[in-house]
Amino acid sequence: MLANIRVVLLNTSHPGNIGAAARAMKTMGLTRLYLLNPKHFPSAEATARASGADDVLASATVCRDLGDALAGSRLVIGASARCRSIPCPVIEPASCASRLFAESERGDVAILFGCERSGLSNEEIDRCQFLVQIPSNPDYGSLNLAAAVQIICYEILVAHRAHEKPGSEISVPDHEPAAADEMERFYEHLERVLIELGFLKPGNPRMLMRRLRRLYNRARPDENEINILRGILSASEQGSRK
Amino acid sequence: MLANIRVVLLNTSHPGNIGAAARAMKTMGLTRLYLLNPKHFPSAEATARASGADDVLASATVCRDLGDALAGSRLVIGASARCRSIPCPVIEPASCASRLFAESERGDVAILFGCERSGLSNEEIDRCQFLVQIPSNPDYGSLNLAAAVQIICYEILVAHRAHEKPGSEISVPDHEPAAADEMERFYEHLERVLIELGFLKPGNPRMLMRRLRRLYNRARPDENEINILRGILSASEQGSRK
Repeated sequence: MLANIRVVLLNTSHPGNIGAAARAMKTMGLTRLYLLNPKHFPSAEATARASGADDVLASATVCRDLGDALAGSRLVIGASARCRSIPCPVIEPASCASRLFAESERGDVAILFGCERSGLSNEEIDRCQFLVQIPSNPDYGSLNLAAAVQIICYEILVAHRAHEKPGSEISVPDHEPAAADEMERFYEHLERVLIELGFLKPGNPRMLMRRLRRLYNRARPDENEINILRGILSASEQGSRK
Repeated sequence: MLANIRVVLLNTSHPGNIGAAARAMKTMGLTRLYLLNPKHFPSAEATARASGADDVLASATVCRDLGDALAGSRLVIGASARCRSIPCPVIEPASCASRLFAESERGDVAILFGCERSGLSNEEIDRCQFLVQIPSNPDYGSLNLAAAVQIICYEILVAHRAHEKPGSEISVPDHEPAAADEMERFYEHLERVLIELGFLKPGNPRMLMRRLRRLYNRARPDENEINILRGILSASEQGSRK
């Protein structure tokens, strides 16, 4: 489905930006780059900035006419930094990505990026069903072209992953906390050593042990870690008996 | 609150990346840049790539020691591309941003980016409570440093905006975790005592200390708890010297 999503760069001035955009696309699994009237292309600078994504550049489609770049696309979204008077719904990157991804199931879709200096023209916006606005600092919204491509493509990959594995956003490594009885044996051992060290008054150990319990319960040590901690306690017992 | 979030670039090789990262930060409203041992800084190339974000470069803090760069930070998250064998919770950019943003309400937090070639070292990861992994193309995950900074900062701004609208709750520890420098002093004390006890071989303390770091980084002790733990260590030192 990602293969149905085309990234269209319009009238790009700096070939370095084309290369960096290709790299940004490929890192997020996108490969279909369309270039409308690039100022310099192909270009050594674009290839250098593309790093290992030169295959995306090599297979890019260069067009002279916006109609050619969009032919076959059923959904067209334009990336826009400016507020527009033209009535076109403005959406956030995550919503843009979900729409592009969902509709790519049925055929081609396109996301347009205007030229570096002035963004999308009114005629270009006329081709769009939506405009996507990347949230930014109101006092400094000057995103580099490749940075904007990176964010949109990142959101597309996030949408793709949410589709593949719904509900698995956070992966925490498997960590098997020790059983309650093992924890109790550890706390008993700890208390014994602390009394032996004179750190704990045998009469009133409650508060301190409670604090230590809270600390280790938060960490939820696994069996291996409990063994290490108890090993340290045993070493300390031997040390203080010397 | 965004002013409490520091972006820490470690051992950056290319000054252009430092400039592009400053620009990426500023577009998303972040301003506190820390540079640990940058290869070239200040640099005309960094300033050129920063575009209008040269103020972020001008106010950047250059450090020689990771401890200095993290001093005072209560939450440290490392950006990592690689799969790691050592268990440290791996989270997604959106979760990373929510955590950084939520905890920045109470004080400083830090997000670390390793050097371009090899990312974060194991010693650098040891300082982190979480690793954030930007989802990417499994066959080409080569995100440019500034592109990675852009995505994380974008997610932070998204979290900030979600916060401004009601309805987004994020779980924050109900205690105040100790700062990174306090944690380091605790780990140094712990290592010293373990060597004294003969539990740790001075030649090869790495693996065990790393495991213990994982454990305590998970618990995120507060200042009071650190004082208790260090009190126990001191008692143990006196005991073994009797």
